[in-house]
Amino acid sequence: MARKYVYFFGEGKAEGRGDMKELLGGKGANLAEMTSIGLPVPPGFTLSTEVCTEFYKNNRQYPDGLTEEVEKNLARVEELMGKKFGDPENPLLVSVRSGARVSMPGMMDTVLNLGLNDETVKGVIKQSGDERFAYDSYRRFIQMYSNVVLGMNGEILEDLLEEMKEERDVELDTQLSSADMKALVQQFKDKVKETLGRDFPTDPREQLWGAIGAVFGSWMNPRAITYRRLNNIPAEWGTAVTVQSMVFGNMGDDCATGVAFTRNPSTGEKIFFGEFLVNAQGEDVVAGIRTPQPINKGKGDSDLPSMEEVLPECYAQLMKIQQILETHYRDMQDIEFTIEKHKLYMLQTRSGKRTARAAVQIAVDMVKEGLIGEKEAVLRVEPRQLDQLLHPSLDPKASKEVIAKGLPASPGAVNGEVVFTADEAEDAARIGLKVILVRIETSPEDIHGMHAAQGILTARGGMTSHAAVVARGMGKCCVAGCGDIKVDYSKQQFATKSGAIIRKGDVITLDGSTGEVMQGAVPTVSPELTGDFAMLMEWVDKFRKLKVRTNADTPNDAAVARKFGAEGIGLCRTEHMFFDAERIMAVREMILSEDVEGRKKALTKILPMQKSDFKGLFREMKGLPVTIRLLDPPLHEFLPQKEAEIEEIAKVMGVDASVLRHKVDYLHEFNPMLGHRGCRLGITYPEIYDMQVQAIMEAACELIQEEGYRIVPEIMIPLVGHVKELEIMRANAVRIADGVIERLGAKVEYLIGTMIELPRAALTADEVASQADFFSFGTNDLTQTTFGLSRDDAGKFLPQYVEQNILPNDPFVTLDQRGVGQLVEMGCEKGRKARPGIKLGICGEHGGDPESVIFCHKIGLDYVSCSPFRVPIARLAAAHAALMDEA
Amino acid sequence: MARKYVYFFGEGKAEGRGDMKELLGGKGANLAEMTSIGLPVPPGFTLSTEVCTEFYKNNRQYPDGLTEEVEKNLARVEELMGKKFGDPENPLLVSVRSGARVSMPGMMDTVLNLGLNDETVKGVIKQSGDERFAYDSYRRFIQMYSNVVLGMNGEILEDLLEEMKEERDVELDTQLSSADMKALVQQFKDKVKETLGRDFPTDPREQLWGAIGAVFGSWMNPRAITYRRLNNIPAEWGTAVTVQSMVFGNMGDDCATGVAFTRNPSTGEKIFFGEFLVNAQGEDVVAGIRTPQPINKGKGDSDLPSMEEVLPECYAQLMKIQQILETHYRDMQDIEFTIEKHKLYMLQTRSGKRTARAAVQIAVDMVKEGLIGEKEAVLRVEPRQLDQLLHPSLDPKASKEVIAKGLPASPGAVNGEVVFTADEAEDAARIGLKVILVRIETSPEDIHGMHAAQGILTARGGMTSHAAVVARGMGKCCVAGCGDIKVDYSKQQFATKSGAIIRKGDVITLDGSTGEVMQGAVPTVSPELTGDFAMLMEWVDKFRKLKVRTNADTPNDAAVARKFGAEGIGLCRTEHMFFDAERIMAVREMILSEDVEGRKKALTKILPMQKSDFKGLFREMKGLPVTIRLLDPPLHEFLPQKEAEIEEIAKVMGVDASVLRHKVDYLHEFNPMLGHRGCRLGITYPEIYDMQVQAIMEAACELIQEEGYRIVPEIMIPLVGHVKELEIMRANAVRIADGVIERLGAKVEYLIGTMIELPRAALTADEVASQADFFSFGTNDLTQTTFGLSRDDAGKFLPQYVEQNILPNDPFVTLDQRGVGQLVEMGCEKGRKARPGIKLGICGEHGGDPESVIFCHKIGLDYVSCSPFRVPIARLAAAHAALMDEA
Repeated sequence: MARKYVYFFGEGKAEGRGDMKELLGGKGANLAEMTSIGLPVPPGFTLSTEVCTEFYKNNRQYPDGLTEEVEKNLARVEELMGKKFGDPENPLLVSVRSGARVSMPGMMDTVLNLGLNDETVKGVIKQSGDERFAYDSYRRFIQMYSNVVLGMNGEILEDLLEEMKEERDVELDTQLSSADMKALVQQFKDKVKETLGRDFPTDPREQLWGAIGAVFGSWMNPRAITYRRLNNIPAEWGTAVTVQSMVFGNMGDDCATGVAFTRNPSTGEKIFFGEFLVNAQGEDVVAGIRTPQPINKGKGDSDLPSMEEVLPECYAQLMKIQQILETHYRDMQDIEFTIEKHKLYMLQTRSGKRTARAAVQIAVDMVKEGLIGEKEAVLRVEPRQLDQLLHPSLDPKASKEVIAKGLPASPGAVNGEVVFTADEAEDAARIGLKVILVRIETSPEDIHGMHAAQGILTARGGMTSHAAVVARGMGKCCVAGCGDIKVDYSKQQFATKSGAIIRKGDVITLDGSTGEVMQGAVPTVSPELTGDFAMLMEWVDKFRKLKVRTNADTPNDAAVARKFGAEGIGLCRTEHMFFDAERIMAVREMILSEDVEGRKKALTKILPMQKSDFKGLFREMKGLPVTIRLLDPPLHEFLPQKEAEIEEIAKVMGVDASVLRHKVDYLHEFNPMLGHRGCRLGITYPEIYDMQVQAIMEAACELIQEEGYRIVPEIMIPLVGHVKELEIMRANAVRIADGVIERLGAKVEYLIGTMIELPRAALTADEVASQADFFSFGTNDLTQTTFGLSRDDAGKFLPQYVEQNILPNDPFVTLDQRGVGQLVEMGCEKGRKARPGIKLGICGEHGGDPESVIFCHKIGLDYVSCSPFRVPIARLAAAHAALMDEA
Repeated sequence: MARKYVYFFGEGKAEGRGDMKELLGGKGANLAEMTSIGLPVPPGFTLSTEVCTEFYKNNRQYPDGLTEEVEKNLARVEELMGKKFGDPENPLLVSVRSGARVSMPGMMDTVLNLGLNDETVKGVIKQSGDERFAYDSYRRFIQMYSNVVLGMNGEILEDLLEEMKEERDVELDTQLSSADMKALVQQFKDKVKETLGRDFPTDPREQLWGAIGAVFGSWMNPRAITYRRLNNIPAEWGTAVTVQSMVFGNMGDDCATGVAFTRNPSTGEKIFFGEFLVNAQGEDVVAGIRTPQPINKGKGDSDLPSMEEVLPECYAQLMKIQQILETHYRDMQDIEFTIEKHKLYMLQTRSGKRTARAAVQIAVDMVKEGLIGEKEAVLRVEPRQLDQLLHPSLDPKASKEVIAKGLPASPGAVNGEVVFTADEAEDAARIGLKVILVRIETSPEDIHGMHAAQGILTARGGMTSHAAVVARGMGKCCVAGCGDIKVDYSKQQFATKSGAIIRKGDVITLDGSTGEVMQGAVPTVSPELTGDFAMLMEWVDKFRKLKVRTNADTPNDAAVARKFGAEGIGLCRTEHMFFDAERIMAVREMILSEDVEGRKKALTKILPMQKSDFKGLFREMKGLPVTIRLLDPPLHEFLPQKEAEIEEIAKVMGVDASVLRHKVDYLHEFNPMLGHRGCRLGITYPEIYDMQVQAIMEAACELIQEEGYRIVPEIMIPLVGHVKELEIMRANAVRIADGVIERLGAKVEYLIGTMIELPRAALTADEVASQADFFSFGTNDLTQTTFGLSRDDAGKFLPQYVEQNILPNDPFVTLDQRGVGQLVEMGCEKGRKARPGIKLGICGEHGGDPESVIFCHKIGLDYVSCSPFRVPIARLAAAHAALMDEA
């Protein structure tokens, strides 16, 4: 039996179904489905994706019998429509559309009005009684066809159209007369011949096969190939082609066209919602030439008459249909319709795009309505979207004056008075002022100011600059790399591109979700973590398998993260505790000491501070696991740079300033990222880690004795490249920890593990595991070393890389699975093999990126850890991952 | 049948053989072998390594029957020696020695004079007639035994000896009387009892088993375990124990002891060569208390009577024996002998250590003598040693005044006038002066001065500092990290630790092979690359499979490398061509241009210079392959730093100095190693690579047309992390190259490949290979990124890492096979799988490191590339690798 290649749909009967997307593409499957459930769909047929596959298998030859099948189906359409393809009296016009399983840029998309020529156009005039409409359709057809099917540069015909408008001294196409359009048709045909050396095809069947061939041909054009490669879409999927009879919403006042959503896509409210235009074509709604009218009476801000009023019968029919569709598809639908002489036709239905707020509301409502189950509800909300919900946002009703635009580095909306130094920010915060810290770029020395400020605005740096990364970690609003502003520290002001000057003390508003900077205080609305959101997250936690921890350095961070559902701390960066203004002096004293004794003296001052830090964290986490990373960054990050600072510290230490200056110079590094940091410090200055371990263990012991929590500190040694480093550091830590336990007589267990953040650690994870109770993949640094890419310096070329599709994503945002992920997987496998049951987690920024979280689930990590404000996103992504396993 | 555990040797008969090292250890096997071939060896027996294995398998119990076997063998020794173990009249004394397959630090080594107690010492007095000798032996035995067998701190008894010398007011042990020695024996025994709480063992059998147990026990002591782990020696190998009867060279003037080499170990001359002492023990020769006498009459500088004269019969016998040994072992032997009352005993023979010069001479001579074949000759010379031969060296006869010592960073010996800046060096060289460039440390801006200087001396930086690496690359003598000197640029002088001041213009000499710095000009001798050396290298080239190329940036480097046997250029770093004083201005203009046009204008100036560089290289290599790497380093390395430079370049470019200063600031990078460099420059500023490809191809085309060489340029794109980068760079290069070929009408093939120097490139080598005709593993950068270790900054901790055995080697010197090597292997495998026949090479510093070269052979690379002066080393290492395959 011959294979079936063409699938008919029309008049309540369809050979395809909605679940046949693989064979018929998204468009074809949905049209078939709508037809089957009795909705009014203009008849047509779909050439399946198998035709595409055969086409390429047989050296671009169509399979045998295809022509006959197409003819047979065309005849059925003609019969249903009472028109004939190519008939000069009453011609059938069709649209030809591509339809892959997923929509794909680069593919030929649509040809409308196919079947027109100098003869059939007369039939259209006769049927519509509208010559201008007929010739406008004809010239549009020639334009579209010659461009997408014949491959002619679209501008050539566009230029003729423009010339005509100039000649007639009009601005809009609609102002051209019927005769103008007719003339254009001739000009277009002449130009096509001149350009391509052959006549524009007049035979409708030639036109049809030309369009079909163009769709299949575009499957293998370079843009489509690239897109597939980047998105891992196999070439074997192929595309389908749908041929459908045209219907027209622009044949008079009893015609219309419109788009609608079955629920409000921005609030989620259960109200049918849409716009339409009388006597118009689909493109006109989009083009914005006329103001569309509302569908419902009395809803929205429009004063224009509604469809409910203008076309009440069609409105009643559409209301019924939209309910059928939503119930049928069990999701909010985005629909397109056309009314031709009082007859309603459905042209498209698909799941509608929606805001995060709407997504949550709709998902929860639909569970309540019994339309979907909890699992489906969870899958209906995109993890990435949630970010919008977790920060204050600008009141959508407020007016705003945007003065500059930078990168949306860390979401949220805040306002405050402008300050230009971290110290000012801190001083202002101390007396209760709300400030925005504005810097050319930030450095670790600005941390206290960033903490104190409402938000951060930088003129330089990308999405992964210091300001951006730290701000995201703090959940603090940040607009980074705002090249529109010119900061002048000396004058304490910045200028915008438009020449406005903002001075210290002026109030501005930042929107970290859009990158906009506004003058004055724009009102904001708070995030809503209760109600529907809380209910959805309850379901989320039921389904996910991956634990979600947070990266938190302070009790405050920890408290926020707990509120967002964190199940422990996956990364506490102890160095952040060192930058505190009161402590930095002792830290500097420690670094600049000439010998162990000097360092120990300074460390003695730091010990009680660190201990109280850890107590705070443990107390906040109430027995949940807390992973504490020992000192990681290069020492020179803590160094005084200014002469006055050097002199001050020299006085405290009782040494000569020149000696200190020499030491500061000595500590300078060419590539600090690859320098004397992490456990390398622990090896050369063991007393630093000794102090930290002592502080951790004393804090844990005392809290256990005082408050009775079960605390199991997880001590993490950073930057291990060779097992031997960990072996030595572990032995030291065990010695100190056991000493504290014995001295304080407390019963405390503890774990000692390492970050896997260097390729060598992943490559030799079997060896490293012999000394580690747990691995935490530090994918920030692992990405830097695997790519040989400094996050601080990448701003000069990484944006171009992402723009040009050299890299599909910023690898510091979404884990590079093929490269970095390969190392992570290798690390897991080797680690588990050498030490079954080893605890595995990830604590890079990727722990809060949905795609990366799904990868972490796939390779079987125990937990991810991310900044507090991304915890709900990670929880939702983890649930998605688990539910995808079930599917 | 019971297993055999003990192997006897004595009186021409031995149960063991020389090839039984696995069972008897090196020492035991050689003693057995010497015995078998009829040489006079004091009889003894060896407990095999299987005893050791059984010992540990059975919870530190000896295997059954061992005691009986030892007794039986002891009896045979007693019989042959006519003495009895423990006999107070004529006691047999023995030595107990460990002997693993390879010698191993941390193992118990030797106990001499075992069998002495208060009774047997009297027998020794009787036999030797020398009471002082007997008691001296006795007290030495107690010292040695209580330390190495009983585990007592050696200093405790040493202190008693020192006290005794103070009491007697003498300086040397030899000045103590017989009575003193006797008193010491008593004091020693008392002290042992006091310290260990038990008597020193007096029963000779208890002493013997104690010593045997100590040897086996030491196999598992921590130092030995660590050593085995680091050197990949399996614990299962075990150690053997050899028990041998003592003979004494210090029983009178008819006794003697000595060491000798069968050929001269420093020149290789075929002359028996050695020293001896009459009436002395082995230790005395080493201790240097008396001046040893020569063995041959009239050879060497000594006026002392030779053995030939003093003990003519023994001399004649020894001459015969050394010839037998050399013929037997087919290698130059290092032998130890003792003469007891005119009777010659052989105590040891082993292959003698030798200088590189001697190694080559001996290997070639032995082939001529028919003793060994060519393959064996090749294997007899250590590749690493060759380095000594390839540079001028200090005349060993010259006297020298060493004023400071640094790291032997790059071999050779040179002298010249001291200068302190690169510019001075260049100026001086221009007028024909020989200079030594002295810097605190060097930077890329000093390259021209380093080129111009005879040698480089730096006060700071390790073996892998900029100065060291660049100097080795240039084959230029360098002493780096010379902390002994204090450089004062402002005074144009440096001070040594001893307070000497060396001023600009003073002449100094550097020895880059020892790190010594000398005042004045010390004469040097030239390397000898002809004669024996050339013959050996001819054999080397017959056997090796790996090709050896060179890293060369100038025609001069290329010429040197050809002389050393390079078969092409594996890496030409084009950026080195940019630092030339005449060019740097144009380069800076290019970097600082605000737009493409500005850059293109500057590049037009550079094009002819680059072209002539490439022509020079191609011409020098006469058709051999030349791999040219396009611009790699971060642009800011070329930037002007000083205000005056900025102003100068601003003038040339006709822009404001402040604009340039801003640009310089903008180009600053936090981690330049991971920054905007390599193909990232090619992506953002394609015109740079376009110019370079044009220069390469024009050079090749013109030379082919002018001189008819077959030139196939290999264009290398650096720092690829993602295949897409290479895809774009390749397409650009092909476009430019094909354009040149067409324009010039030449027939030129070319290859386009990439460096694999980022972990991600290795991990995704299958993808990368789709765009690469060849891979060259850039293991310098690959080591930096895999370890997360900056070569420029590692000086602060890497030395400590190597010292503490955290890393077995400096990974920038010897390839880290387990980590970095794993990536290289992965890269090869994936690359070959995706593109069979892809050309694979390595161009990191490791290409000249023998161990790394062997690894490259093993994983099947096509070639290694190294600095010119290491080419012969790489050739030899490659031959070793190939010959090891045959074995």
